[in-house]
Amino acid sequence: MGGNSFGTLFRITTWGESHGEALGVVIDGCPSQIDLSEEDIQREMERRRPGQGMGTSPRKERDRVKILSGVFEGKTTGTPISIILWNEDVNSTPYNEIKEIYRPGHADFTYQVKYGIRDHRGGGRASARETVGRVAAGAIAKKVLEQEKIKIFAYTLELGGVRAEKIDYEEIEKNFFQCPDRDAAIAMEKKVEEVKVEGDTIGGIVEILVRGCPPGLGEPVFDKLEADLAKGLMSIGAVRGVEVGAGFRVAQMFGSQCNDPLGPEGFEKNDAGGILGGISNGMDIVLRVAVKPIPSILQEQRTVGHNRSPVSIQIKGRHDISAIPRIIPVCEAMVAIVLADHLLRQKVYES
Amino acid sequence: MGGNSFGTLFRITTWGESHGEALGVVIDGCPSQIDLSEEDIQREMERRRPGQGMGTSPRKERDRVKILSGVFEGKTTGTPISIILWNEDVNSTPYNEIKEIYRPGHADFTYQVKYGIRDHRGGGRASARETVGRVAAGAIAKKVLEQEKIKIFAYTLELGGVRAEKIDYEEIEKNFFQCPDRDAAIAMEKKVEEVKVEGDTIGGIVEILVRGCPPGLGEPVFDKLEADLAKGLMSIGAVRGVEVGAGFRVAQMFGSQCNDPLGPEGFEKNDAGGILGGISNGMDIVLRVAVKPIPSILQEQRTVGHNRSPVSIQIKGRHDISAIPRIIPVCEAMVAIVLADHLLRQKVYES
Amino acid sequence: MGGNSFGTLFRITTWGESHGEALGVVIDGCPSQIDLSEEDIQREMERRRPGQGMGTSPRKERDRVKILSGVFEGKTTGTPISIILWNEDVNSTPYNEIKEIYRPGHADFTYQVKYGIRDHRGGGRASARETVGRVAAGAIAKKVLEQEKIKIFAYTLELGGVRAEKIDYEEIEKNFFQCPDRDAAIAMEKKVEEVKVEGDTIGGIVEILVRGCPPGLGEPVFDKLEADLAKGLMSIGAVRGVEVGAGFRVAQMFGSQCNDPLGPEGFEKNDAGGILGGISNGMDIVLRVAVKPIPSILQEQRTVGHNRSPVSIQIKGRHDISAIPRIIPVCEAMVAIVLADHLLRQKVYES
Amino acid sequence: MGGNSFGTLFRITTWGESHGEALGVVIDGCPSQIDLSEEDIQREMERRRPGQGMGTSPRKERDRVKILSGVFEGKTTGTPISIILWNEDVNSTPYNEIKEIYRPGHADFTYQVKYGIRDHRGGGRASARETVGRVAAGAIAKKVLEQEKIKIFAYTLELGGVRAEKIDYEEIEKNFFQCPDRDAAIAMEKKVEEVKVEGDTIGGIVEILVRGCPPGLGEPVFDKLEADLAKGLMSIGAVRGVEVGAGFRVAQMFGSQCNDPLGPEGFEKNDAGGILGGISNGMDIVLRVAVKPIPSILQEQRTVGHNRSPVSIQIKGRHDISAIPRIIPVCEAMVAIVLADHLLRQKVYES
Repeated sequence: MGGNSFGTLFRITTWGESHGEALGVVIDGCPSQIDLSEEDIQREMERRRPGQGMGTSPRKERDRVKILSGVFEGKTTGTPISIILWNEDVNSTPYNEIKEIYRPGHADFTYQVKYGIRDHRGGGRASARETVGRVAAGAIAKKVLEQEKIKIFAYTLELGGVRAEKIDYEEIEKNFFQCPDRDAAIAMEKKVEEVKVEGDTIGGIVEILVRGCPPGLGEPVFDKLEADLAKGLMSIGAVRGVEVGAGFRVAQMFGSQCNDPLGPEGFEKNDAGGILGGISNGMDIVLRVAVKPIPSILQEQRTVGHNRSPVSIQIKGRHDISAIPRIIPVCEAMVAIVLADHLLRQKVYES
Repeated sequence: MGGNSFGTLFRITTWGESHGEALGVVIDGCPSQIDLSEEDIQREMERRRPGQGMGTSPRKERDRVKILSGVFEGKTTGTPISIILWNEDVNSTPYNEIKEIYRPGHADFTYQVKYGIRDHRGGGRASARETVGRVAAGAIAKKVLEQEKIKIFAYTLELGGVRAEKIDYEEIEKNFFQCPDRDAAIAMEKKVEEVKVEGDTIGGIVEILVRGCPPGLGEPVFDKLEADLAKGLMSIGAVRGVEVGAGFRVAQMFGSQCNDPLGPEGFEKNDAGGILGGISNGMDIVLRVAVKPIPSILQEQRTVGHNRSPVSIQIKGRHDISAIPRIIPVCEAMVAIVLADHLLRQKVYES
Repeated sequence: MGGNSFGTLFRITTWGESHGEALGVVIDGCPSQIDLSEEDIQREMERRRPGQGMGTSPRKERDRVKILSGVFEGKTTGTPISIILWNEDVNSTPYNEIKEIYRPGHADFTYQVKYGIRDHRGGGRASARETVGRVAAGAIAKKVLEQEKIKIFAYTLELGGVRAEKIDYEEIEKNFFQCPDRDAAIAMEKKVEEVKVEGDTIGGIVEILVRGCPPGLGEPVFDKLEADLAKGLMSIGAVRGVEVGAGFRVAQMFGSQCNDPLGPEGFEKNDAGGILGGISNGMDIVLRVAVKPIPSILQEQRTVGHNRSPVSIQIKGRHDISAIPRIIPVCEAMVAIVLADHLLRQKVYES
Repeated sequence: MGGNSFGTLFRITTWGESHGEALGVVIDGCPSQIDLSEEDIQREMERRRPGQGMGTSPRKERDRVKILSGVFEGKTTGTPISIILWNEDVNSTPYNEIKEIYRPGHADFTYQVKYGIRDHRGGGRASARETVGRVAAGAIAKKVLEQEKIKIFAYTLELGGVRAEKIDYEEIEKNFFQCPDRDAAIAMEKKVEEVKVEGDTIGGIVEILVRGCPPGLGEPVFDKLEADLAKGLMSIGAVRGVEVGAGFRVAQMFGSQCNDPLGPEGFEKNDAGGILGGISNGMDIVLRVAVKPIPSILQEQRTVGHNRSPVSIQIKGRHDISAIPRIIPVCEAMVAIVLADHLLRQKVYES
């Protein structure tokens, strides 16, 4: 119970360090007889690696997904699905000089305090590379949701202070930032170029939308749908805030504004973000997460070593300018896993 | 596994409906030999019931706490602690007219869809009264934390658009809104009076602070400290957003601003809000939650009945204008429960 | 997570000490819309208290069951069902003299070592009275199973060395020992009288039978149906062994004897006891448990006090001669809870 | 939650099919800074493969263990330990003819009913080969226990009706059957030869002994130490009965015989098998399991196919005559995992 599992019925366990032999995930509780190929998972994995785009990490993460169990003749069997990704093309040498230094904004200090030992290479278990297991499991969760016509997608709402002013879903797949506003996407590109010159990094906001979720998912009192979604999203390393529907805007709303009236055709607006009393209400589920800037900046920073003496470090190599857009499929994956879990939980009581 | 339990080692299970016989909580996993009296719990319960204050519900919730098990000669024994609060002074008659109507902003619709049946009296299980079990369990969690000198407190940061401009901790206990800014508290009082006249309600923001938390609490990857805190807080009915440290502000920060430099004396600022890589870093833990306006407004509202035909309802009785400040001890309770749980989890690995 | 909860989807949490205020159980995950009255539960509770029968404890356990939540207008609502039984008619004075003495065969020593404190009155949490929560939850589990026509019953196979030589189900309810062999029941009665004179107690074997269980229940690998049944039954204080189907007899069987051949009508015999590969196969589930003699004997016994100095004790009061037959409804309850849980788990994958 | 995980704090998840790509286990919750090499695990794995011994399966299970994560510079890091064993040297062709036939005594029928699909090759997930993950995890659990000087060993008490009449621990490692009675071992060998000629198989009894377990492990009420041990052992495919201490013998004992008197030096005998009230009492823990004969016999058997029509099958290939002695390290592994888990659970409350 070291905290590396997630979910109740659709339950995933991830493992692996950034520069270890491999990373992987075991999914226990996936229903049987679902079509599943390595290609289904690979496709999601590619979205995590936006390729030649600007500002992204040049490390060639081949991330060739391999299914080791739980699938027979192209279908899930109900037994645990084990997925592995080998760590190829890894060079840990650059990390030698920070072996005994705590990088600001990273988990180096807290891991050392907690465990008395840490694999410093590439950030070890605390690396963003940990999310490959989430994305692989999320791809399978999406297959489960597909059977019920539930669809999840996410996009960049804000990056480095540039905010999408309109939401054109068609646009999302067309620009590098997966931003639903073409003009904003261009401004984001400019912003990234500026920040890169400074050796700095930027944060932003990702919005996640769930279409076609039936009403009834979510368990009161503690396993409210938004509570499990909040946990799943907040467990992503770079996320510092989560909100549902009107979110923090509710602080300035009146009850008469915030309540969504019900008409014969259903809810007449959606400030609840698709969840009432912890249970999905049939409307789109709307979530937003705040993504912090990547802590690995090229500028010189003050910090201390294991011996607490002050040092100045300058992180080398080429790092991403923002966790966005690579974090987008990770957000989708966590939402998919939570929904698949609650979909199965709800099936118990429906039959 | 209907979602009414929370925690891994310090695990609570709550039960009870607003107008049923009683409500209660069972705490399993509380260490033995901790001094515990009903008075310790009653004190927290009183804070949930701010008395004659303006804008608050006049229902006399005596909420007399009774410990039924797990305590012997004033000390915990390590066996489950069962706490009960009887529902006295309950009149369900006013609820008869909404028995087959879905109140906007309430869980009436989603409970009916999920379970095919619901106890409509006083909102049943979905009532804010459900939180008494949380507050009782939180009082015990605070006793566990006290042993390590960990202290939690929360206050109103914003209400109905009025925001505290300064943080004077001395002021918190002095005004009704538990707001750390005296001038803001006065403005909040004025705001509440205005809204009351309109028959409307308002939302706000609560900030929670944890002092004295040692570094090392929190489990990667999924049970990150902020992930469990987010789940615990988001599981409170009125909460629509949760953030840690700089929170949504990170979206507009540079990495060079957001990273907290480390010096020989520790972290030199605290934008991380006391948690790095999912593990407490020894600084104050800082959280904020967005609280939506109470959905029970006195104004007439459009909605539908069980048969989907449109009706107009006007909710009677006197209801709170805001879940704030009564939600404050509930927020503290959830944070206390999460921290007590992670404190115990960390003890496993320390010895 | 002090070990007071059981089950995955149909999950129960029991609490309470023998001489505390009350005992109870919370059931979370019971499906909604099941008819449930206090009488349904009371009936099972009465079976735990065989009344004026010989050899049984004379303490008047009124055990009046009260449902506090989760039921509305006679039907379950899907929210947690809380059940309470008050401890009336309790006199703890006789226990004063063993306050600092470890009774042989009891949990006094181990509780003291584990917790550093214990409620010695009536055995505290380790009392057989703890099982009232199991029986109450079991009554509800039986209601869940009834919907699928699954029926559980148990009987005395052996007592004090007297073994039932024939199995006449009609006979079970007719004799005090719930033994399916009339002649054996008479011999058991004689045996009990002899042992009573000696101030001693006796053990025995209970057999549990499940009729009408559909194939498919049970989860490989660790949550095999017989594994969860073994845990449930072995968690009853007096049980020291559990076996399924041919049980320990398999040690002396050949594979050609032990395998159950399959014909067009199904299995042609049932040495597997209804479970193959951890999954029910549609045949009767057959289980047996070994029940140790009640440790509270009237004879003088050697032991030590908290200070480790030797003392001689003679336990006073009138105690049962055997946990049989009162343990029978407890065994049924644990089997019912395990099956209800696995029935719900299987529903996830069926729909 | 498909039942492929086990344990609360020391939690393992196994995966893999007999003829799939690989099998493995993920251990989450292992404390950090424990020395761990692949050799530590390989050694236990070899014991599962008694080599050229008579009556054992000739398939060359190389079972080369590979650690993929959670270990850095020879020490555990507190992050999940992932272990893989590739399935080499696999020929699934012989299984083609039973693809749509249910072998008696195997899980073929129940898997098909439960999942609607099954990997028939080598028994798929229901193969005894599944236990490699248990043995690997058990090797790590033993390292955890070693730190507290807790030692587990198991031996053959009975095989094919031949029972060890004396217990000479020195003898265990000296004979193929790991029987503590040299004469019995010789008789067992003879028995195996006889049975082999008949194309049949035999069952037996394994006894497991835990030395050095401190008092205090085990959680009342449901997670009693013997309850978790019973679940762990009963989850091994071939096990049909589990008992602790005097076990089924208690049925014929008097209370005055069964109670273990306490003296100044501790318990004066050990019929309780080291566990009182669900908590270890400091004496040796003594467990016994009944092992059924291997269901794959060479004799012709009657059964049915997927279409329910009767067929006669004769299983080919050379199979083991008994799961004993190969099951011995598996039993030890399960006991080690349960104890490591409860050792960690108890640490929570000790500090």
